[in-house]
Amino acid sequence: MIRIGVAGLGTVGSSTLDLLMNHNARIAARAGADMAVTAVCSRDKSKDRGVDLSGVTWFDDPVALAASDDIDMYIELIGGADGVAKASVEAALSAGKKVITANKAMLAHHGAAMSKMAEQTDGASLHYEAAVAGGIPAIKALREGMTANEVSRVSGILNGTCNYILTEMEETGAAFDGVLADAQRLGYAEADPEADVGGFDAAHKLALLAAIAFGQEVDFDAVEITGIERVAAEDISFAGELGYRIRLLGVAEKTEAGVSQRMRPCLTPKNSPLGKIEGVTNAVMIEGDAIGSTMLIGPGAGGGPTASAVIADVVDAARGNTPPTFGLNSATGLSAPKPAAKGGDHGAFYLRLSLADRPGALAEIATVLGAEGVSIHRMRQYDHQGDSAPVAIVTHETGEANLSRAIDRIAALDVSLAPPVSMRIVSI
Amino acid sequence: MIRIGVAGLGTVGSSTLDLLMNHNARIAARAGADMAVTAVCSRDKSKDRGVDLSGVTWFDDPVALAASDDIDMYIELIGGADGVAKASVEAALSAGKKVITANKAMLAHHGAAMSKMAEQTDGASLHYEAAVAGGIPAIKALREGMTANEVSRVSGILNGTCNYILTEMEETGAAFDGVLADAQRLGYAEADPEADVGGFDAAHKLALLAAIAFGQEVDFDAVEITGIERVAAEDISFAGELGYRIRLLGVAEKTEAGVSQRMRPCLTPKNSPLGKIEGVTNAVMIEGDAIGSTMLIGPGAGGGPTASAVIADVVDAARGNTPPTFGLNSATGLSAPKPAAKGGDHGAFYLRLSLADRPGALAEIATVLGAEGVSIHRMRQYDHQGDSAPVAIVTHETGEANLSRAIDRIAALDVSLAPPVSMRIVSI
Repeated sequence: MIRIGVAGLGTVGSSTLDLLMNHNARIAARAGADMAVTAVCSRDKSKDRGVDLSGVTWFDDPVALAASDDIDMYIELIGGADGVAKASVEAALSAGKKVITANKAMLAHHGAAMSKMAEQTDGASLHYEAAVAGGIPAIKALREGMTANEVSRVSGILNGTCNYILTEMEETGAAFDGVLADAQRLGYAEADPEADVGGFDAAHKLALLAAIAFGQEVDFDAVEITGIERVAAEDISFAGELGYRIRLLGVAEKTEAGVSQRMRPCLTPKNSPLGKIEGVTNAVMIEGDAIGSTMLIGPGAGGGPTASAVIADVVDAARGNTPPTFGLNSATGLSAPKPAAKGGDHGAFYLRLSLADRPGALAEIATVLGAEGVSIHRMRQYDHQGDSAPVAIVTHETGEANLSRAIDRIAALDVSLAPPVSMRIVSI
Repeated sequence: MIRIGVAGLGTVGSSTLDLLMNHNARIAARAGADMAVTAVCSRDKSKDRGVDLSGVTWFDDPVALAASDDIDMYIELIGGADGVAKASVEAALSAGKKVITANKAMLAHHGAAMSKMAEQTDGASLHYEAAVAGGIPAIKALREGMTANEVSRVSGILNGTCNYILTEMEETGAAFDGVLADAQRLGYAEADPEADVGGFDAAHKLALLAAIAFGQEVDFDAVEITGIERVAAEDISFAGELGYRIRLLGVAEKTEAGVSQRMRPCLTPKNSPLGKIEGVTNAVMIEGDAIGSTMLIGPGAGGGPTASAVIADVVDAARGNTPPTFGLNSATGLSAPKPAAKGGDHGAFYLRLSLADRPGALAEIATVLGAEGVSIHRMRQYDHQGDSAPVAIVTHETGEANLSRAIDRIAALDVSLAPPVSMRIVSI
């Protein structure tokens, strides 16, 4: 009998209890072992979670639950990069328990140390399928399904809230603030939306995928992060006219300059695999030398899908399928991070400018771009809005540093009436 | 040191050797164990396979290789449901070896017996990620990633050759025979195309997925199979006008009447997940109660992707990740097949008729359909082609048996000038 302790009984925790208690037999059969939830920890003991918790031991302290001799497996669903979530996971690993967590922030910041602890403590293991893309078995596919491959790129749409907002902005023409407010009302965005719309939640996930893909320690600090808050309705409309959609894309690549990790709103062709992903759906694309490319699409959040990922880990842990946390032994196999320098991207970019409505304005812009080695592939000037005329430019491939210099110079020109907006164009 | 024997050195075998020999270090690191190809078996010893086989023992008999004390792991890439492939896998399992195979035909016919042998012999295990959808980790995702779920349906596009042919027919307007000949010239179809275009290859894969999804023994005989040979250019064109694409869809469902498994050309909305899959790409859709739905898309065949799946199994086997072959213990967990009766589908259908160009012809058809309880949702009559006028009908939801009776009666009418063609309309 495997005794399971669960800390954190919110949406995912409640769904996890539902599966483990109300659907125990089918999961035990898949695990080849009897299992039961024997202990839980949550602030609110009175809430109805749809399961009978009368025979279960309640803990007030997750760390005490995690270290308890009365459990074999610890499921951490508290959240937060530090604090009791981290303390409890460390306590459970130290005590040689199987740990299952959905906590992407914690692993993005402490995954390197925690993986060593998991692999160096007898009996311990660390599982986190639920931390990335909810119902999509992305960790398993990448860590166990792609072992033959030298992975060149892992990319995806990793935050359903952002993809929902961008999809809605495109469909309704509405501005970011209004769509966000609607999303909050519908439960698709948190009251404090910063972790989602700022790109941090998705960046945590990308850092975990990159660690597995490239066999290096998690390197969250190296992720270049831009949120979607500044994506304007006119960007979406101009992008649409040019044949693109705007998506918050995570792209981690291994290049000669090192590993780059970028989480940014990008323009992507409407018919590209990631451009077709709509609403709260997530997608993960894996590209490797043997496989070519494989994409996984599914629900990125929600109680059922995330709890499904938790249970997949429970069954793996019960069966003893405990590969190294990031695919390679964290002491002897994973390399130290080798990040590429930030700001060193190379490719085509979209640029939106607000130009003064006077002769020679466009010529000044073109001169600056030319001087910085940024060549224009397509350009559209739109109707005046008051004194200014919006201009949308698609560049040929160029260095991000060149573009940054050009943007700084353009921003300083009298003819530039608002800060230029730029986004990478990515065809994945 | 894990000693590996490989039998069958065609395209997939050669790619597998390339990975195991030319990229050994990265695979061994992921496996956490040293490994080497120590023995092979193939008819042609002289062919250049891009690897140095000078230190490897050659066997003439795959069964002797499989049973040899000099290997720990046996990779079967010979193919064929019976004969030496089957004999060699049985020999290896009996000898307690890890067996990895890409042989969907063998497992579709003998998987029930082989899984018992694998699970009841000390040390033996049976892995077959490469048997289904090549580079897509579909077996792993379904067997290990969805363990929380009561799966209601597993479906997909499981044969790249058929999807390529149907995509080409749609894009060019050409007839089946010509597109098949082109596909054969380009290497996308075999010289003997029957296993692919007849739907059998894809049906083998569907039977394996259904066994895992529904926890029952493989039941290939229960698969209802229709190939794509009779899909006409005009069906594709009429379907297109109605908003559909034709795809060879595999659909396995668990209903109260039992498990249905169907591999048939179907009409699917152009914007549906499976309707969007083009060319040689494969896709697998898994629907379950916790997850909702998740889809995996990738290359379904080819040396690299298939060998990648073989290696994923090699690493799993090396790490001791050997869950039951079909997810549940084959002696105590899998149920006996509970097939739904064939011909018992229920849904909307597409119907193409060739009617005589004379008054009352349509009325006769409508009368028969009405008498059999088949109600018409949409109907289009096209320009005469000689004496006959093609008519395309989309029915409301109806029983397959009703439709079959109506078709039999229509075929017997004087006004019906060619055998009616019918296809299920599926929105997945």
